[in-house]
Amino acid sequence: MNSDINLLLNNKVSWLADCGPSEDIAISSRIRLARNLEGVPFPPHATPAQLNEIINTVEMAVQRNKELEPFLKFKIGETSDLDKMVMFERRLISREFMEKSDPGELLVTADESFGIMVNEEDHLRMQFMRSGFQLKNVWQEINRIDDILSNQLPYVFNKDLGFLTSCPTNVGTGIRASVMLHLPGLVLSNQINAVIQGVSKLGLVVRGIFGEGTQNLGNLYQVSNQSTLGESEEQIIERLGNVITQIINHEKNARRNLLETNQPFLLNHVGRAYGTLRHAYILSSAEALDSLSALRLGVDMGMFSSVDIHTVNELFIIINPAHLQKYAGKELDSSERDIYRAVLVRERLKASDRGK
Amino acid sequence: MNSDINLLLNNKVSWLADCGPSEDIAISSRIRLARNLEGVPFPPHATPAQLNEIINTVEMAVQRNKELEPFLKFKIGETSDLDKMVMFERRLISREFMEKSDPGELLVTADESFGIMVNEEDHLRMQFMRSGFQLKNVWQEINRIDDILSNQLPYVFNKDLGFLTSCPTNVGTGIRASVMLHLPGLVLSNQINAVIQGVSKLGLVVRGIFGEGTQNLGNLYQVSNQSTLGESEEQIIERLGNVITQIINHEKNARRNLLETNQPFLLNHVGRAYGTLRHAYILSSAEALDSLSALRLGVDMGMFSSVDIHTVNELFIIINPAHLQKYAGKELDSSERDIYRAVLVRERLKASDRGK
Repeated sequence: MNSDINLLLNNKVSWLADCGPSEDIAISSRIRLARNLEGVPFPPHATPAQLNEIINTVEMAVQRNKELEPFLKFKIGETSDLDKMVMFERRLISREFMEKSDPGELLVTADESFGIMVNEEDHLRMQFMRSGFQLKNVWQEINRIDDILSNQLPYVFNKDLGFLTSCPTNVGTGIRASVMLHLPGLVLSNQINAVIQGVSKLGLVVRGIFGEGTQNLGNLYQVSNQSTLGESEEQIIERLGNVITQIINHEKNARRNLLETNQPFLLNHVGRAYGTLRHAYILSSAEALDSLSALRLGVDMGMFSSVDIHTVNELFIIINPAHLQKYAGKELDSSERDIYRAVLVRERLKASDRGK
Repeated sequence: MNSDINLLLNNKVSWLADCGPSEDIAISSRIRLARNLEGVPFPPHATPAQLNEIINTVEMAVQRNKELEPFLKFKIGETSDLDKMVMFERRLISREFMEKSDPGELLVTADESFGIMVNEEDHLRMQFMRSGFQLKNVWQEINRIDDILSNQLPYVFNKDLGFLTSCPTNVGTGIRASVMLHLPGLVLSNQINAVIQGVSKLGLVVRGIFGEGTQNLGNLYQVSNQSTLGESEEQIIERLGNVITQIINHEKNARRNLLETNQPFLLNHVGRAYGTLRHAYILSSAEALDSLSALRLGVDMGMFSSVDIHTVNELFIIINPAHLQKYAGKELDSSERDIYRAVLVRERLKASDRGK
């Protein structure tokens, strides 16, 4: 039986609600692994019957396992567009998976830390997420689960190439590790482009919160590895982690420098953003993200003792269109969303005020 | 002996702090009378010795009178530029009086409801101010004082023309009556220009808060009579009052209409203004006035139970440059004023919040 999307909506999202290392700058760490099963073509070339067979095989493997947490289960073909959009906004499924019509399924733990997209581009796309900057812990977690599953699932593995995948760019380790960073200091001091260029030269990729083309929203940047071949998982994570550490230091310096050389500008930037979020009645998505970014900076700087950083983190997700419509309990057009977004933000920040 | 400007700064301003009729739209009512004394040329043509003689004569007349309240006394030649600017911002003296170098004096009651500029363009320019829309009461008050003074001061009066004045436009009654109106509804609904044109055709004058050229600041408009000849004071006040009543009704309709047809726009306009005033750290004079106007509209509409309308009224005055520098206790350049203006506004609104 399929699960209800409300099981997700009513929960705190662990990777947003928990505390994590360097959480003033690193929102979350994520690792995903691409895996395929022997004897069945990769999803783009498989028949619906074969894809359903994969779903059954994976379901049985995870259910059989006492070591794994229980999973919520969402059959993509039986899920409404709005609910799929909610999963996308929660970073549980990809845009491609959201739009597919072939048999596919999302398996996800109730705390949303671990999920498997079955029959996205590969038979299994599993991901593990934690708040803050903790790639090594995330690797241990997902590696443990992968080991368990590999005992029950016949992964396609070539001793020379490693794991085989639908797209050649994932062959080898099938790993993509990423950290979502909040970099308002580098943006406000006009250093961000130099940092992005530097990171790109090191063979890493910088993207926006929801992937390509969303680069600047809320000053959130996902930094991830490009290549999956020629290095071990640990080496990939080590190399990525070293660069992340450097970016975090750059951001810290930028913030300190702004505070020392132009404190009124910074206070004004943050204060006005809070004023807007707390008191506006019409709020576009872009303005909300920009203002949340400034507010988060203010919280990090200790300006708003009443506002919890995890409330701000969660707002980054729930101000998106599908979440707004789920909370409102009805379809909303663009201008209705701008009004309801303002309601939701005001209420959350007001509740945060009262809490302290 | 001269008085200290702090006697004014530490007081509440009665015409801002008291309640008055229609105070949701009418900030204040003011009447000034121009009078001159026999035997001495009008100030532009008098010698310093003659001007000093006028000052002595007026001082003795007001001191001798038990029926009059005590006056604070400011010799314009012994007052700093900053202190004169404070008086100008409090609407106690005119721009011309502020800039003059000949002997002149301001006599003003401690509550600032009544004042006399001695040796402005005329020997006496006296004014009476009350909060709200109450021209008739103000006329009774100033007429009573004028009667008392006329017993002791030899006013220049011609039985055909009436009171003679330095400038022919004031001859006759020497009266200028004005009401300061807050008209955000007419501005937001683009009706203000039609109203101003209509009022002008009736022989009345519309100006900004500090006179000509300040038309749009804070959506505050002073409406006053143009002519002083050919009608009695009561007729002038009656005619002006009728027009003011109509403008107030127009403004009420405009507000009601905005609330009925575009409530989110209105709430957003007001909420954002409050957010800016409450949380900005850099605040220009123009933005402060616009935001205060929107906040006052919100208070009138009952949106901010914690904010007192008189706090907002007073902010319209004390955010001006001279007041800011007096409160700061030092000279401030333009960007320092923008920072200190934000401090003052935040503190006042915060105190207002705590008060309820």
